[in-house]
Amino acid sequence: MSRQPSAELVQLFQPVEEGLDAMRACLEEQLVESSHAVADMTGHVSRFRGKQLRAALVLLSAKACGTYTAEHPQVAAVVEMIHLATLVHDDILDGAEVRRRVACVNQRWDNQVAVLLGDFLYARAFALSTTLSSRLCSRLLAETTRTLCVGEIEQSSRRYDFDVERETLESIATAKTASLYAAACELGARYPGGPVELGDTMAAFGRELGLAFQLVDDCLDLVGDTKVVGKSTGTDVADGKVTLPVWFTYQASSDEVRAAIRDAYTQPGVEDRAAALKAAVDVGPGVEAALARAKGLLVDAQGRLADLPESPARASLEEITRFVLRRSF
Amino acid sequence: MSRQPSAELVQLFQPVEEGLDAMRACLEEQLVESSHAVADMTGHVSRFRGKQLRAALVLLSAKACGTYTAEHPQVAAVVEMIHLATLVHDDILDGAEVRRRVACVNQRWDNQVAVLLGDFLYARAFALSTTLSSRLCSRLLAETTRTLCVGEIEQSSRRYDFDVERETLESIATAKTASLYAAACELGARYPGGPVELGDTMAAFGRELGLAFQLVDDCLDLVGDTKVVGKSTGTDVADGKVTLPVWFTYQASSDEVRAAIRDAYTQPGVEDRAAALKAAVDVGPGVEAALARAKGLLVDAQGRLADLPESPARASLEEITRFVLRRSF
Repeated sequence: MSRQPSAELVQLFQPVEEGLDAMRACLEEQLVESSHAVADMTGHVSRFRGKQLRAALVLLSAKACGTYTAEHPQVAAVVEMIHLATLVHDDILDGAEVRRRVACVNQRWDNQVAVLLGDFLYARAFALSTTLSSRLCSRLLAETTRTLCVGEIEQSSRRYDFDVERETLESIATAKTASLYAAACELGARYPGGPVELGDTMAAFGRELGLAFQLVDDCLDLVGDTKVVGKSTGTDVADGKVTLPVWFTYQASSDEVRAAIRDAYTQPGVEDRAAALKAAVDVGPGVEAALARAKGLLVDAQGRLADLPESPARASLEEITRFVLRRSF
Repeated sequence: MSRQPSAELVQLFQPVEEGLDAMRACLEEQLVESSHAVADMTGHVSRFRGKQLRAALVLLSAKACGTYTAEHPQVAAVVEMIHLATLVHDDILDGAEVRRRVACVNQRWDNQVAVLLGDFLYARAFALSTTLSSRLCSRLLAETTRTLCVGEIEQSSRRYDFDVERETLESIATAKTASLYAAACELGARYPGGPVELGDTMAAFGRELGLAFQLVDDCLDLVGDTKVVGKSTGTDVADGKVTLPVWFTYQASSDEVRAAIRDAYTQPGVEDRAAALKAAVDVGPGVEAALARAKGLLVDAQGRLADLPESPARASLEEITRFVLRRSF
């Protein structure tokens, strides 16, 4: 059980420390904007910094595959900016009240401006990608951004749907979260234009890692402590999202308990829906089942690295798969 | 006075009819998405179709400059999709109740989904641009999208600011509206990589045309009839936006009337703020001044075409500058 994941990650990111510094410098430069109104907001966003895990995955994948170039930190910055854009727009989506213990953009400003700031970050990311020597980054990330949006839209359309199939839930989570991890690892391995096979292998690694990460996130949202997790919890239930731990719980429940679960999600006047859900049913086994699925994915992910030569970067990638399960539990 | 601008525009678009058909086919194809949830929304968006003026400007500029290629309809589709994305996100911004007499996306769905649909359209546009043979389209439009966002953010930060300078108001309108017109005309003239000078000239044409268009829009929002204009009016005042016709009105007013103008914008409980404003002051002279400014810009825009060889496309571009002033007055 670790309460300092960031200190642990700093250690894991050590093989690409220099590249991450260059990535951060690039990010800062991109967020500077002559407009005062924009500078005020982007200054705020830079405090959203977070784990920068996706950027690190670009760099670690490149190092582990022996394909690292001087442009990789910029590629990593593009990936990170797209992630930042999704975070800013997610704040509108989830109504989350706390994210990384910093007031959300849509609390300091209104929804309008949060929409625009997210758009600005997307545009900045694409503009940066078009200055790179190869078009691979623009192509892959434009496609991935589309996938992210489709995943979010699908998720939104499946709210309050307890009869959804497990495969559908996983493919939504893959689209809305894992696809950016996959793109980060693929770009690390292939940019500016390396072999497709190596890219596919690393994309699979990223996809499995990212899906596992999302499943753990879903569990943390359901049973985690806001102070430990560092962002609001219980938001998925409040937003009507049927996540995998809830899905497992629902599947294993009697008709009577199922009705109580649906009530927790939908009955008017319930203030803390996650608490109501946990009062209606023991979510423990469902959480365990979701974590077991995450564990299986992480074992698969580790297997993807088998053919890479041993290196500090490869060791870090392996360790990150283990870190996913440790974080905040 | 014309109440059928679209019939008039069809006539003006005649020199590029074939290209517009190809653009529309490309747009339809881009909006098709295997996801049912997305298809439902994009089906709705395709009814937002509107004038497709920006797409036509790409094609007419290319024809008028003699630089038309088989890829221009796709370039036009990218421009049109970016415009669609801004419309979808604008509906969140403006709270407009009617746009082109079709229910807004954020009325049929909620704000969350409107954010995602706009993001999807941006991503789709960038993804399409990365499949073109030249990177010019991606580069110019990523940069332009950034400018559009900065313009909107600046405008948002200047709400209720009656002491803003006229130059600032115009540079905001240029960023948030005219920059996409400029990019459309520049891409028409230069794509895939024609002379910079010709691109600059056509960009200036587009910028002046677009700014004039915005100023006329601002006047229509203030004094137009919802049924004629085809979208909600009075929204700028309701949203606290000080547009150029209001700015002229405010500048020419006594201290007492200025206070009444500010009250119309800010006093609690006022239901129809535009009506309150028009009850407090005659906005007619301010509207005339803004239209005079638009007229001046359109004369400048016409001058930009002087060195182009005579052609049906050039004649259409000239006629479009005249159309801007005629529309819906």
